[in-house]
Amino acid sequence: MLIVGELINTSRKLIKEAVANKDADYIKDIARRQVEAGAGYVDVNCGTLVHEEVETMAWLVNTIKEAVDAPLCIDSPSPKALKAGLELAGKGQPMVNSITAEKERYESVLPLVLEYKAKVVALCMDDSGMPETAAQRIVIIKKLVKDLTAAGVPQDDIYLDPLVKPVGVSDGAGLEVLDTLRFIKADYPSVHIICGLSNISFGLPNRKVLNRLFMVQTMTAGMDSYILDPLDKTMMGFYYASQALLGKDPYCMQYLKAHRAGLFTE
Amino acid sequence: MLIVGELINTSRKLIKEAVANKDADYIKDIARRQVEAGAGYVDVNCGTLVHEEVETMAWLVNTIKEAVDAPLCIDSPSPKALKAGLELAGKGQPMVNSITAEKERYESVLPLVLEYKAKVVALCMDDSGMPETAAQRIVIIKKLVKDLTAAGVPQDDIYLDPLVKPVGVSDGAGLEVLDTLRFIKADYPSVHIICGLSNISFGLPNRKVLNRLFMVQTMTAGMDSYILDPLDKTMMGFYYASQALLGKDPYCMQYLKAHRAGLFTE
Repeated sequence: MLIVGELINTSRKLIKEAVANKDADYIKDIARRQVEAGAGYVDVNCGTLVHEEVETMAWLVNTIKEAVDAPLCIDSPSPKALKAGLELAGKGQPMVNSITAEKERYESVLPLVLEYKAKVVALCMDDSGMPETAAQRIVIIKKLVKDLTAAGVPQDDIYLDPLVKPVGVSDGAGLEVLDTLRFIKADYPSVHIICGLSNISFGLPNRKVLNRLFMVQTMTAGMDSYILDPLDKTMMGFYYASQALLGKDPYCMQYLKAHRAGLFTE
Repeated sequence: MLIVGELINTSRKLIKEAVANKDADYIKDIARRQVEAGAGYVDVNCGTLVHEEVETMAWLVNTIKEAVDAPLCIDSPSPKALKAGLELAGKGQPMVNSITAEKERYESVLPLVLEYKAKVVALCMDDSGMPETAAQRIVIIKKLVKDLTAAGVPQDDIYLDPLVKPVGVSDGAGLEVLDTLRFIKADYPSVHIICGLSNISFGLPNRKVLNRLFMVQTMTAGMDSYILDPLDKTMMGFYYASQALLGKDPYCMQYLKAHRAGLFTE
């Protein structure tokens, strides 16, 4: 299981301000707290700063790596910003977030994945757009896994993102993702599956409850990685509880540790 | 989906006192509140009162049916107590809780299921004891479904209970149940699956969190009925949220109703 800490993203107001003020201490603190809370990778996304994304990525990566030893997840649709982040990332194996099956994006991001021997988040979309059904996702997934492995990316470095859509827009949005997971686990047992959770609850009340329970549901169906806020104690409590219930936490040791750390309030 | 309200059970201190004092108003109030909160059946269990179980069952059933129109789930290992409850149950199709594959119990309970055309909870155990693994459960399930349907019980009236054991005692306890569910859904799509939730968390802290999340996990794997406390608002909120996320709540109507009823606190 892998948690990618999502908080360092300039779409978040406080991060945007810290970047504007070159407030390195704030960025370092958020990086450190995410790792302490269980993040195995720290995501870095400054895509909202279109005209200064490359310089900002470099500053953020340099800042974060002074604070934590965890490897970084360089998050951008722009190959230039990805390159800037990967070049400086340093510690451990970096992660590229993300490649897709769109021809232009695939061809521009793949060389970076290979050059930096990175793990890669592969979004389940192609030039025909975002899929609705599990069947549509599976067609794209087959192509992504085939092409990435043929290019030399090990299955264990691929993190498929099925692309979660709002259940408030389409009743079947969650179910299509769950069905997709079962296919991936059966056909590609070494490939990882990752997603962000907040899309599922778009437009509905009690979004945090829905996001957390969709994590529990997708874990049950085989998802093994999440891009989330590790400082959400209830979310992390549910994560450890789910792992214990799924038999993935010998003697419930991590669960009991989470209990002692105060992650549960009932 | 079916919720069986579990609260009228003399193992609970307040119920035991109400029975001792023949406090019909208290029993009626608990019955009414469970049905208002979403229980489709009201469980009636006075098994702790060994020497007066039959008379108590009769008094409880008569009391409860004055308060609610929901059918009753007559809960006892004793054929005499089951008979006393079923004879008086009256409204709707009653449920027998429970039969097992133990020879003596099977033979003494089956005639009651047939006589009262009842739904029946079939516990996954036989004369060799309680199963540990999914494979052991599946052997018993195949026998139960074969024998019950051969005797004339429709698949749709059978509620298999896989028997949940504590994950704090055996790491794989939850996973074996989840694997059992996948087998039942694939091989017997018309048969229902039910369980109580509290065993899963025995011996661990934050039991309510574990019970609720095990409900979410088992719903994801195909369980469709629960014996639980419908007055636990967070549990019921998770139930409605899970249904919406699983695409079983058109336009999230029940979820939004649960939201307006204050089931979510985040």
